[in-house]
Amino acid sequence: MTELLNKIGKQAQIAAQTLAQVPTSTKNQVLCAMADALEERTPEILEANQADLADTTGLEDKFIDRLTLTADRLAGIADGVRKVANLSDPLGNIERGWTTDSGLEISQKRVPLGVVGIIYEARPNVTVDSAVLCFKSGNAVILRGGKEALQTNIKIAVILREVLGAFNLPKDIVQVVAETSHELAQQFMRLNEYIDVLIPRGSARLIQTVVAHATVPVIETGAGNCHIYVDETADLQMAIDIVINAKTQRPSVCNATEKLLVNAAIAPDFLPQIAQALASSHVEIRGDEQTCQILGDQVRPAQPEDWDIEYNDYIIAIKIVDGLDEAVSHINQHNTKHSEAIITTDYEHSQQFTQQVDAACVYVNASTRFTDGFEFGFGAEIGISTQKLHARGPMGLKELTTTKYVILGQGQIR
Amino acid sequence: MTELLNKIGKQAQIAAQTLAQVPTSTKNQVLCAMADALEERTPEILEANQADLADTTGLEDKFIDRLTLTADRLAGIADGVRKVANLSDPLGNIERGWTTDSGLEISQKRVPLGVVGIIYEARPNVTVDSAVLCFKSGNAVILRGGKEALQTNIKIAVILREVLGAFNLPKDIVQVVAETSHELAQQFMRLNEYIDVLIPRGSARLIQTVVAHATVPVIETGAGNCHIYVDETADLQMAIDIVINAKTQRPSVCNATEKLLVNAAIAPDFLPQIAQALASSHVEIRGDEQTCQILGDQVRPAQPEDWDIEYNDYIIAIKIVDGLDEAVSHINQHNTKHSEAIITTDYEHSQQFTQQVDAACVYVNASTRFTDGFEFGFGAEIGISTQKLHARGPMGLKELTTTKYVILGQGQIR
Repeated sequence: MTELLNKIGKQAQIAAQTLAQVPTSTKNQVLCAMADALEERTPEILEANQADLADTTGLEDKFIDRLTLTADRLAGIADGVRKVANLSDPLGNIERGWTTDSGLEISQKRVPLGVVGIIYEARPNVTVDSAVLCFKSGNAVILRGGKEALQTNIKIAVILREVLGAFNLPKDIVQVVAETSHELAQQFMRLNEYIDVLIPRGSARLIQTVVAHATVPVIETGAGNCHIYVDETADLQMAIDIVINAKTQRPSVCNATEKLLVNAAIAPDFLPQIAQALASSHVEIRGDEQTCQILGDQVRPAQPEDWDIEYNDYIIAIKIVDGLDEAVSHINQHNTKHSEAIITTDYEHSQQFTQQVDAACVYVNASTRFTDGFEFGFGAEIGISTQKLHARGPMGLKELTTTKYVILGQGQIR
Repeated sequence: MTELLNKIGKQAQIAAQTLAQVPTSTKNQVLCAMADALEERTPEILEANQADLADTTGLEDKFIDRLTLTADRLAGIADGVRKVANLSDPLGNIERGWTTDSGLEISQKRVPLGVVGIIYEARPNVTVDSAVLCFKSGNAVILRGGKEALQTNIKIAVILREVLGAFNLPKDIVQVVAETSHELAQQFMRLNEYIDVLIPRGSARLIQTVVAHATVPVIETGAGNCHIYVDETADLQMAIDIVINAKTQRPSVCNATEKLLVNAAIAPDFLPQIAQALASSHVEIRGDEQTCQILGDQVRPAQPEDWDIEYNDYIIAIKIVDGLDEAVSHINQHNTKHSEAIITTDYEHSQQFTQQVDAACVYVNASTRFTDGFEFGFGAEIGISTQKLHARGPMGLKELTTTKYVILGQGQIR
């Protein structure tokens, strides 16, 4: 098993060295050819996918839905690949440069990370998406997806690798780990000799497992216990529109709002209005003591653990706060450092909130749902980083790269 | 024990929130007052240091030397603190900003990491240095140093904390972990709830232990198996000067050169010259087969493991290569991705080397010894990152920070 992983790792490292020198125009041609191949070979992929779907005993419907491919979905995936071809290539950019007192010319140049490991669940779209984002950013990728999607993933990899081969590029730029045991996953997370970065994509549980067991540097993505604070100066209609959007437009994702903090001064006026709007959208409300007093039996009492839960569902918890200080302090204590918003018409309050709240994305008068690589204009997204090292917030192609210093001298010694 | 660490962690987190809002001018005043206090209270610090030095049974001389403070050394440390006061503050800088199609104004603003954990050996200078660099970059710091320096570290922390208190700042901006058991160190590395980043500073062994056991994100620093490749077009006198400087100016540090690769075409001419220069500097040579053939009994044969060892000593291993491709491939296989140099007069070769060698710093015609925060002009250094995430190469104040996105809207929803 260790032997298998070492072989895969070494192959990836060698392939990455070649890929790092491939010009952007070639990479874009390859991406378009990959998109075409995925469409042309749809029947083969669907056949492999059917094999994976042959036994779905005990799997949830949501799980099966994510695992299932159709011709339409594949066309959408192929279109995504073409969009990556259109993104600008961050590699080779000189981030900064200067000449030292000793006359050395230093440039900090953007280069690939090298080998990226992706650990994810049974979602074939993540296979394609991760492979092409890593490819465009000059990285070899090792994909370790959920075992339920293994046949589909292997077939997709075969197709992408054949395209790489047709362009005389090393096929090992894209590799799928075909053995899906728990033990192998553990070893994969400790393959420091060959893997430069590990990105887990999926549920909070998957991510926590990777963080707990990996020795390879990890980019933590995902969990979002996001808050909206409605200030006493807020435009209440704007507050209602934003809360409803942030909670209900897509409740299952990490940038959906989970908690509503309301200034005590406007609570008696605002709470009945927002409660009605939430009820119309079938959102369950859990309230702190004061909220329950105002809203009565429209709400059930929130438990202490409610303030830390990411519901990912049609549920919201509401807390009344005395003012901005309490709101900031509650958020900094309970948030997952993802996305936080204030609704206000007060300039000072907007400043204090954006300065003091500790999160990847801090909003004034907008929905937390905008925390997204596409909405940010990055054109793609490999995930939303909730850690502070390397990348914070939506990660696009640039966040899949690193830099190196190139130093040109004329014989300098110390 | 867990209770102690949770308490320290929580205190650091609260202190960090206050520190994040402190203006640069105040921080600089505090730093100058810290420098003064360290000098004024030299007798107290030396007394604590003597207590640590009371029993040095079994410790190496080098170890004792690093642990020992004198009035002169303390004056030097205080001067270092004043220099940090003079550095420009990276916080608050807007790294980039744009307006999205939906009219959101996004700015990416530089902010502190939050709480930084430092794990290091019995070197009291690292206590001061880490504390003030973290302070200037807006981070609370938790210092876990070697147990042999505990009394000194506690005394230094008391003094720095009193200065913080005198400026009405939270003393918990600087905390020393006073219990130095192995078990506590292990728990410290897994304190994800409170520590944002862990930086090990010290030996390769210390760093590897932290990488293997930490779940908190780690910035890996240190190990340097650095190479110089002497191209067939090199100015041989320049090559000799650079090799002697890179090997002997300070052999114990990570940016010292450990390996010399020589193009076969110039080996018969160059090797006797460099061997003589190395002999004059008391450097032991270990050679591959061809090197041994040319230099005879001036060298001992290199063993396979020699190509991966960081000697940190007056030892160098020499290998003859057929050309640039072999040099690049040998370096990428054996280096620690720290600093690599080519000596050449050929433009194409300089380009190929800087493009293909995978390392934090790649040099043309200069000594690898320049990989250093001060030499780079950063004015300070918390270490040299050899990993690819977050920071690569010398890390100054900017590398002790992260960013957050501030998004200003007018009621936008998706």
